[in-house]
Amino acid sequence: MKEKRSLMKDERIEELRITKVSSGKKEETEDVVVTESPLTIYLNDEKVVTLLCTPQDQESLALGFLFSEGLIQNKKEIERIDSDRKDEIKILTATKRSLPADFSQTKILTSGCAKGVTFSNLSAEGESASGEEDPDPTRDLLIDLQVTLTSSEIQNLMHAFEKRSVLFRKTGGVHAAALSDQEKILIYSEDIGRHNAVDKVFGKCLLEEVTGGDKILLLSGRISSDILAKATKSGLSIIVSRSAPTSLAVKNAKMLGVTLVGFARGSRMNVYSFPLRITT
Amino acid sequence: MKEKRSLMKDERIEELRITKVSSGKKEETEDVVVTESPLTIYLNDEKVVTLLCTPQDQESLALGFLFSEGLIQNKKEIERIDSDRKDEIKILTATKRSLPADFSQTKILTSGCAKGVTFSNLSAEGESASGEEDPDPTRDLLIDLQVTLTSSEIQNLMHAFEKRSVLFRKTGGVHAAALSDQEKILIYSEDIGRHNAVDKVFGKCLLEEVTGGDKILLLSGRISSDILAKATKSGLSIIVSRSAPTSLAVKNAKMLGVTLVGFARGSRMNVYSFPLRITT
Repeated sequence: MKEKRSLMKDERIEELRITKVSSGKKEETEDVVVTESPLTIYLNDEKVVTLLCTPQDQESLALGFLFSEGLIQNKKEIERIDSDRKDEIKILTATKRSLPADFSQTKILTSGCAKGVTFSNLSAEGESASGEEDPDPTRDLLIDLQVTLTSSEIQNLMHAFEKRSVLFRKTGGVHAAALSDQEKILIYSEDIGRHNAVDKVFGKCLLEEVTGGDKILLLSGRISSDILAKATKSGLSIIVSRSAPTSLAVKNAKMLGVTLVGFARGSRMNVYSFPLRITT
Repeated sequence: MKEKRSLMKDERIEELRITKVSSGKKEETEDVVVTESPLTIYLNDEKVVTLLCTPQDQESLALGFLFSEGLIQNKKEIERIDSDRKDEIKILTATKRSLPADFSQTKILTSGCAKGVTFSNLSAEGESASGEEDPDPTRDLLIDLQVTLTSSEIQNLMHAFEKRSVLFRKTGGVHAAALSDQEKILIYSEDIGRHNAVDKVFGKCLLEEVTGGDKILLLSGRISSDILAKATKSGLSIIVSRSAPTSLAVKNAKMLGVTLVGFARGSRMNVYSFPLRITT
């Protein structure tokens, strides 16, 4: 179940000739763009989805996608992963299972800039909600403070996170996501899709049996409600992004007891929910 | 069929109290985040999709989404638009029609960071392809040069485009898309979703019966293959973005005769396909 393809030559980029224009002058030059390619994910014999993604860590993407969609829960369920074809991944489970009858309907319900569980799905599962139904920030006092971070720890983590993004520096066309503890990046992923990058992280967690509860999710892109839902599914309680959160992400984070940190740039950052977890 | 809601108070943002951290100091302050809210689109009596979007121009979003999905073609087909509820839009067509039996399957096939027609769908329709099946850039000589732009026209358009983005400046959390002629912005939209912003533009085109052929699509976000597919459906031949294109977008643009301009920032820009349309 190793990520075979990442050991091959860099398929994540394509070199091509472009015309650069600068102050009215044209020049033919070499440039690189990020690769976008289709990946069809099968669960046993059923086609689940075709994603347009960056061809790296496809097994993690497939597993993370199935995990986010609630179709697999842990590594033990997986019997085999077939990835003979570049554009297909087949996940075979030990106990045969079919897609829920309403699966495509559920998915349609959630395509915002993507796919993924809706907040209502998440809420119905009752994970991590633990009675935090009042979005009043004074409820801070009741939240689990198992994980806290100082603002300089955040600054250091985001610095390390941004240094890792070689592909972004090459192409300017990808999102990054990472899982860290208080000190270092444990898992790192990049993809042209904001949701794919997060699914890859949780797919790697599943493969490597890393549990999320005491970890921190780092993001380059915006924190929307569906990204929050993916993180909450893994029991994370702190999400830090370079970018903005949406209103629904903040509202749901307040309800679910999750600390959202946005615009984390250098020593500055905005804390949108449960600031008690961020010490100074 | 006016956009009623946009005349009301600014529902696109939510004010909230946050904790700002700067160089280790915490401060409670007011801030705004971009609103993310669900919108369910019905075609006659059938639920088509629920999008997570910015609550502005919802009618345009619904029409643009149905247009992008090939479910409606023009304004004449529309009998009525019901938007009594904030979170629902019902598009009623003069001639009753149902969703294709394979509609949800088709959609699943295309959720990358989204939904939308795949390139293969588009190609099957044969629009704009007009024999440009060889991605060899020397084929430039055969393309339709009805629309050309100078690099300083692009610079001026992108300047005007970025000035319009009040919501981005307020929240840092949205994508913008616009349709322009050589001189000015004709249609402008913002949304938390990159695809939604583009669908809103084409929905407005449909409402206002603006044809795309001689217009230019301006984007704040990346040009992926599905964004290209949406633009090509409207017959556009020039797409300009502040951000990067993906490899598949460049490949398909070369095949479809579309000029892609990326990283358009000030007087600099990269032309990835058919540079003959960009004069200096």
